[in-house]
Amino acid sequence: MSLAATLDRIDADLDDALKRLSELIRIPSISTDPVHAGDCDLAADRLVADLAGLGFRAEKRATPGHPMVVAQGGEGGPHLMFYGHYDVQPVDPLDLWDRPPFEPEILDTPDGRVIHGRGASDDKGQLMTFIEACRAWKAVHGALPCRITVFLEGEEESGSPSLVPFLRDNADELRADIALICDTGLFDGRVPAIVTQLRGLVGEQVTISAASRDLHSGGYGGLAANPARVLARILTGLHDATGRVTLPGFYDGVPKLSADLKAQWDALGFDTDRFLGSVGLTTPAGEAGKTPLEMLWSEPTCEINGMWSGYTGAGFKTVLPAKAHAKVSFRLVGTQDPAAIRAAFRAQVEAGLPPDCTAEFEAHGGSPASQMATDHPAFAKAREALSDEWPDPAAFIGGGGSIPVAGHFKTELGMDSMLIGFAHDSDRIHSPNEKYDLASFHKGIRSWARILAALREV
Amino acid sequence: MSLAATLDRIDADLDDALKRLSELIRIPSISTDPVHAGDCDLAADRLVADLAGLGFRAEKRATPGHPMVVAQGGEGGPHLMFYGHYDVQPVDPLDLWDRPPFEPEILDTPDGRVIHGRGASDDKGQLMTFIEACRAWKAVHGALPCRITVFLEGEEESGSPSLVPFLRDNADELRADIALICDTGLFDGRVPAIVTQLRGLVGEQVTISAASRDLHSGGYGGLAANPARVLARILTGLHDATGRVTLPGFYDGVPKLSADLKAQWDALGFDTDRFLGSVGLTTPAGEAGKTPLEMLWSEPTCEINGMWSGYTGAGFKTVLPAKAHAKVSFRLVGTQDPAAIRAAFRAQVEAGLPPDCTAEFEAHGGSPASQMATDHPAFAKAREALSDEWPDPAAFIGGGGSIPVAGHFKTELGMDSMLIGFAHDSDRIHSPNEKYDLASFHKGIRSWARILAALREV
Repeated sequence: MSLAATLDRIDADLDDALKRLSELIRIPSISTDPVHAGDCDLAADRLVADLAGLGFRAEKRATPGHPMVVAQGGEGGPHLMFYGHYDVQPVDPLDLWDRPPFEPEILDTPDGRVIHGRGASDDKGQLMTFIEACRAWKAVHGALPCRITVFLEGEEESGSPSLVPFLRDNADELRADIALICDTGLFDGRVPAIVTQLRGLVGEQVTISAASRDLHSGGYGGLAANPARVLARILTGLHDATGRVTLPGFYDGVPKLSADLKAQWDALGFDTDRFLGSVGLTTPAGEAGKTPLEMLWSEPTCEINGMWSGYTGAGFKTVLPAKAHAKVSFRLVGTQDPAAIRAAFRAQVEAGLPPDCTAEFEAHGGSPASQMATDHPAFAKAREALSDEWPDPAAFIGGGGSIPVAGHFKTELGMDSMLIGFAHDSDRIHSPNEKYDLASFHKGIRSWARILAALREV
Repeated sequence: MSLAATLDRIDADLDDALKRLSELIRIPSISTDPVHAGDCDLAADRLVADLAGLGFRAEKRATPGHPMVVAQGGEGGPHLMFYGHYDVQPVDPLDLWDRPPFEPEILDTPDGRVIHGRGASDDKGQLMTFIEACRAWKAVHGALPCRITVFLEGEEESGSPSLVPFLRDNADELRADIALICDTGLFDGRVPAIVTQLRGLVGEQVTISAASRDLHSGGYGGLAANPARVLARILTGLHDATGRVTLPGFYDGVPKLSADLKAQWDALGFDTDRFLGSVGLTTPAGEAGKTPLEMLWSEPTCEINGMWSGYTGAGFKTVLPAKAHAKVSFRLVGTQDPAAIRAAFRAQVEAGLPPDCTAEFEAHGGSPASQMATDHPAFAKAREALSDEWPDPAAFIGGGGSIPVAGHFKTELGMDSMLIGFAHDSDRIHSPNEKYDLASFHKGIRSWARILAALREV
């Protein structure tokens, strides 16, 4: 039977697919909040039941945190693993939601029809695009297209503490020819995209201490060290006047962007004005001489994510703070080494301390950049399949953020990943009034059906 | 009758004087907390009654805030005004107090006998030294030594909002030949001191804004302006490498320290190691080439009193903050102009803003430095009187903080002030477990008796 029959089936079944997605959104599976542990369990149960109904051998598997869903199904062809996560972000501030976050509704908006609710996009809507594609295929062909492992996590929004141990303990069962990850978006809300490189991340919290207590700025000002001033100076020294990061060795492992990739990115026609304008900005602020997409995808960064010191309340208090704090993160590319960069940061802070000041550090995450195996034949096949579904041809793009699971699949299972997703930048994931475009959902399901058909032949 | 008889009377009456001080401390006259408005009233009533008992025409005078106490007494000789404040600081955190803040107790400590309680030093213990000296004088001589106006404020710890209007409305009644202000301390806990110069203060809050909301540092990092970085750079640029403030014109009006005053200060034998060591520091951090006392008393400063931006909670959140804030203050000396320095600060911040960043400012206080009229004959007389009472000869010293009332007396009433007080740096004013040394109280009362005797002849 033909792919066309499967696509027709998807079209015919769309209303029921939306009902199934709504039922999943109704479960408030907030992984970071212990109060919702039972809801995470419930979401996992629901997905196990759904997958079992499609012929998967599906199980809920316990971890020290929330359970994993592991389902094996199909025969022959390549062995594909699909990854998504059923947990969602918290909903505060609740008063900024226009309607209840766990009572999904279909809404007509100026930008089209959407489904509104926490997790509608991230990642319940996205993961259901794959499951619905499998359902349609099964309905039309009586069987899944090839051997498929579905692996769904319940802790992605709370740091994935159980993920790596689970991968290690179940490596043989989970390893497939390639992983398909549905947790990314369309480029510019329009172009279907395969993310082929992701930046890594090093997070550091630094506390600079001077006096044993906050001091009166009249009694001590001018004589006593002020750690807020020291911190500001050290943070400022992390960049030079052109925006380059000053840590010794920081650029070791930063690759030169290939002419081929640069040409592909240039061809995307990235609308910098629109991208920045949507958040009230006008001007690229990164390193001199780089294009906006290079700044976002292929250049490393050093940013202050938070800082605090002294009196921060209403009015004024003339204190010399005893301590000053900052949270600093580095986005990494190529083969930049998180451990080396963490060490260089700490050394540079220490070297900048005047007498009486000490620094303490706290590490928050460290993962290298990910480079996908774009020479794997699945990439070309998937790109072609996506191009058949959408008005614009599919693109290989970069990603500015970090999706650590792709790195873990490579490190723990030796498995490459292909990141394909259908979200919009406007989906307000992690924010109030999250939504998923019905067009993303519908064409996302159709995209996976096309990709599954194409990958059978790989 | 002789001064000796008055001093004997003070010695004999000390226990009762302590009881009177204890009764005043028992009244929780916290001016910043509306719950304690009635207690402020009660403290004013008590002082009015006490002064009336000494023959003053004493009144509680209403203001839009807490009442003033104004008492007129005595005849002949110079007309002296005495200023103190009956309100106290809040007591939180209460759990850091070793005993209840408003149940004063006499305690023997390794450093001598003290009276423990909120306001024991600041300013109830200090203001009572003057009233007890008047009481002893009256008891021995049957009259006050000269014409005296006692003026006690109830809003000093909450910004003195009613002070200047009250001075304006009652200028003729309040104006005297000189004001005596008892709200300062002994130098180094040992040397009786008259503060002859005080630093002024300019406070500014600045907010730098960039994007319309916090951004994800993966999605925008490297491309979008980060106001925390901008703020850190601008704050760092306020000082050069030698610690000099970089604002254009900042040093206009900073006088060269006279050789005479420098010699006096050098002779004080300031123990920098002990002063810094008591708060865990070792090394003067001010402008290169200045002595520690110059850094504290005769040099201006620019300090960060608070700063905050982005995510400051537990863990890590990879945001690019939309806003970054700082509270910055300048201590002023000589004739530095608060308005000009505020304007120079704002101009320098504005000049440092990159595209997409804007700055907003909020003014918090602005007062010039105060220079006392040390050529007024009262200064030499009081210095001699203090030297007679204490083991060390009295010194003319500077003050790092601001005592705005002295400036207001000059501006509103054309009246000079003489600042004499007996507090120790260890009194923990504004902090838990405030205390006042009984030696400060006893010798403070005796000091005022000597000063009153000496000033009769001025």
